[in-house]
Amino acid sequence: MTGAQSLLQTLVNGGVEICFTNPGTSEMHFVAAADDVREMRTVLGLFEGVCTGAADGYARMAGKPAATLLHLGPGLGNGFANLHNARRANTPLINIVGDHTTYHLQHDPPLTTDIESIVKGFSGWVRRSRCAADVPGDAADAIVAAMTPPRQVATLILPADASWNESREPAFAPALPRPRAVDPATVRRTADLLRRGEPTALFLSGALFMEDGLRLAGRIARTTGARIMGNRVNARTQRGAGRVVVERLPYPIEPAMAMLKGSAYLILAGSPPPVPFFAWPGKPNWIIPDDCRIHVLATPEEDCLGAMAALAEEVGASSDVSATYPYDRPALPTGAIAAEKVWRALAALMPENAIVSDEGVTSSRDAEAWTVGAPPHDWLNVTGGSIGQGLPVATGAALACPDRKVFAMESDGAGMYTLQALWTQARERLDVVTVIFANRAYKILRGELRQMGIATPGPKATAMLDLGNPNLDWVKLAEGMGVPGSRAGTCEEFIDQLRNAIRTPGPRLIEVILP
Amino acid sequence: MTGAQSLLQTLVNGGVEICFTNPGTSEMHFVAAADDVREMRTVLGLFEGVCTGAADGYARMAGKPAATLLHLGPGLGNGFANLHNARRANTPLINIVGDHTTYHLQHDPPLTTDIESIVKGFSGWVRRSRCAADVPGDAADAIVAAMTPPRQVATLILPADASWNESREPAFAPALPRPRAVDPATVRRTADLLRRGEPTALFLSGALFMEDGLRLAGRIARTTGARIMGNRVNARTQRGAGRVVVERLPYPIEPAMAMLKGSAYLILAGSPPPVPFFAWPGKPNWIIPDDCRIHVLATPEEDCLGAMAALAEEVGASSDVSATYPYDRPALPTGAIAAEKVWRALAALMPENAIVSDEGVTSSRDAEAWTVGAPPHDWLNVTGGSIGQGLPVATGAALACPDRKVFAMESDGAGMYTLQALWTQARERLDVVTVIFANRAYKILRGELRQMGIATPGPKATAMLDLGNPNLDWVKLAEGMGVPGSRAGTCEEFIDQLRNAIRTPGPRLIEVILP
Repeated sequence: MTGAQSLLQTLVNGGVEICFTNPGTSEMHFVAAADDVREMRTVLGLFEGVCTGAADGYARMAGKPAATLLHLGPGLGNGFANLHNARRANTPLINIVGDHTTYHLQHDPPLTTDIESIVKGFSGWVRRSRCAADVPGDAADAIVAAMTPPRQVATLILPADASWNESREPAFAPALPRPRAVDPATVRRTADLLRRGEPTALFLSGALFMEDGLRLAGRIARTTGARIMGNRVNARTQRGAGRVVVERLPYPIEPAMAMLKGSAYLILAGSPPPVPFFAWPGKPNWIIPDDCRIHVLATPEEDCLGAMAALAEEVGASSDVSATYPYDRPALPTGAIAAEKVWRALAALMPENAIVSDEGVTSSRDAEAWTVGAPPHDWLNVTGGSIGQGLPVATGAALACPDRKVFAMESDGAGMYTLQALWTQARERLDVVTVIFANRAYKILRGELRQMGIATPGPKATAMLDLGNPNLDWVKLAEGMGVPGSRAGTCEEFIDQLRNAIRTPGPRLIEVILP
Repeated sequence: MTGAQSLLQTLVNGGVEICFTNPGTSEMHFVAAADDVREMRTVLGLFEGVCTGAADGYARMAGKPAATLLHLGPGLGNGFANLHNARRANTPLINIVGDHTTYHLQHDPPLTTDIESIVKGFSGWVRRSRCAADVPGDAADAIVAAMTPPRQVATLILPADASWNESREPAFAPALPRPRAVDPATVRRTADLLRRGEPTALFLSGALFMEDGLRLAGRIARTTGARIMGNRVNARTQRGAGRVVVERLPYPIEPAMAMLKGSAYLILAGSPPPVPFFAWPGKPNWIIPDDCRIHVLATPEEDCLGAMAALAEEVGASSDVSATYPYDRPALPTGAIAAEKVWRALAALMPENAIVSDEGVTSSRDAEAWTVGAPPHDWLNVTGGSIGQGLPVATGAALACPDRKVFAMESDGAGMYTLQALWTQARERLDVVTVIFANRAYKILRGELRQMGIATPGPKATAMLDLGNPNLDWVKLAEGMGVPGSRAGTCEEFIDQLRNAIRTPGPRLIEVILP
């Protein structure tokens, strides 16, 4: 049994059943071994950012890691941006990077680079397998590392000879670490604080945006009067009709500060303190009021769900929750198209249990409000701020949940970074409806220019934020990768195409031409 | 004057006149400043790998650096692979990476990552500007660093407030370092060695593949009987009819060893010892014979052109050169298309002084032989082994040389990594003819599987090397980005389309469907 075979079987034993690959010469034994390990599904991406983003999307929905297979440092570089997003999502991910044979590195052949350095930016755990015999143990350790709360990217660097040489038997499924329980005294102190009756906000971590966490928060809020808050972007949010209402932090600094204003206490439930995305000249870059006291119920590494359950008991929380979103589908829009109308149409038509990968950027401004009364669904955000995640994450989510409809709501600028994801969707016949908001600009940056105090940009600045000249034709781009495409210029056209896409299994792309 | 304005003017003062940009919020003042510095041309790329590859291609042809503008760590990650290739090409490049404001980093906002670590993989020089006042001096130092022999990528990390705050006057053009002269004693020893009459090979660095270097090598070879050798891949090679013949090291290990076999001396003229790309199981991974002595005429940092001139004088080299390629255009091919016939057609029809960006991979196997009798032209290879360079490098070369026809000879697999380059070609109306070799496979990896000892790959391995199911439609992909495209299935169709593309200014793409 080669190192590669033992690696793949160890991954399968540990519950890792899918690998997103873009291999090269040094990974050929891994590629060959895939045929020996039946339970491992391999999915090819034509660009590494597709592989890493898809692995992220898969894990968000499956609740367990996928693996990637990348070709040396440059392949890892191509996957960097979405590994960064995965880190910010606390996604468990087994990131396998092939490298030169151990005895060839000394010659510094052309593809050699400093892999360990690149990895520092996103990987909480990294190991270079010394030899084939070490590979199964290293792989088991990688799984444990990836699943260690709050979960992370674990990178295994795999020299070609560690892959091809004779190895040991695969490792058994490793015991996965449980999150550290929160000290009961901390729970009691938090309950005391909530009982004071002062204005208090409970700030949820991403992990609490699932059904169970939301209900606990809602019960605590109902009994104590606390507000429930969370970040605007989140790895996975369970939402829609019947689910607990959460106030989400807006992106601009002024409304974010306004939301927190007046809070005497901010209770952090597994989340770090919320921070603004950027600092802008002449504006504050800290949104928590000076007289608001920060209280940590659980750190990101701790068992925040258990802490919330203990807190609910401690405050004697009712079984009712604070407030839930009513079932409220908007009426179908008509006439000229607009981003906001796209969301209304989606909310009116989306099937139950859908998944939305949201990278609409400025076109998603009204998305939350219009869709939150739709039937229950899952929502996936860009967590690390690096655009080019939406199409790959949708791809991975569709592989994790083949029975659910996935909507990739994508801005044209963000979509271009990783458009190769469409080809993987076509090859794997994934049930993804991609909607491109074609505003033909990095529109958010026009706003950012103003925020930066630049009221009247010149022609060169304007051209750098403009995606016109020439316009992209997303229908052709999709068809070029085997995904049927269509274009909508009115609400009626969009609704017709969306209905058709919802009815028809397999990938579809609709380009919405915004005015 | 802001830091950004002073930065751009300093770059212009130092001869850096073009910047390939993919900006975000933290770069808004840089974007705005472009309108205040008339001499700086800004070119937008829709993916950072396009920007970094284009900056590489520009510098190879212009002989001076371009700048890039990337958005924090994730944007840098997207540009990594082609920065790696640039490093291996010894390309001077000013790599500007925007970052958060100095006082915002402490909050670890979502886009934060360890930029300095990523940079280690490719950048010979890195500095983070501490404040706006430091920026012009830092920029001048970056230019000096980039141009320090053998030239390199210099990375300047630019916090947003160093960009927007009041700065100093721009720096003047810095004095650029000259390469260190080779010790005359070393030249004399090399001449002595050449006079022994034993089988000797002169192994040229990339810098010697320009007209002047080749002629010096040819004169020395003519007089001493030495063979002239060089790497298979090279940043820029001046070649074609009338230019000095160089033996290029083949990619597979056996013919590479055969080429060096029997050499008593290997004289390195500015090059490190040649090494194989990979190690394969059961094969040697060092190609220089054990009984061949390695002699260094010049290190990569030294003045290898000066050393060659001194050596020519020391050996009393004739004014004639060893051998040159005769003018010999092949006949136009006919009938069924094949990769080799594409090259014959190109060699038959290419205009004088063309530029070829070669990323045909397996389809380029016969390229050298068929084209070397064509009129003089420049040839750009993938230097770092990371595919996805060909289209961006062609884009940059066309911007450096607007009066020359550029041919991007591209495999379908490699092209998909950075296909967004086509959009930049359309926007800038660049005179680039892209030829896609559509063999619908990572064909080189099929060979690598065999080299690795895997004779009969299973269905999963086969699927991972296959780009069919579905086939890519490159005509639609090109048209989707504003580049006119056509498809050729026979030699006659290809020749007709190629003639038309050569005649017509502006970008064109021809997809050649290989059997």
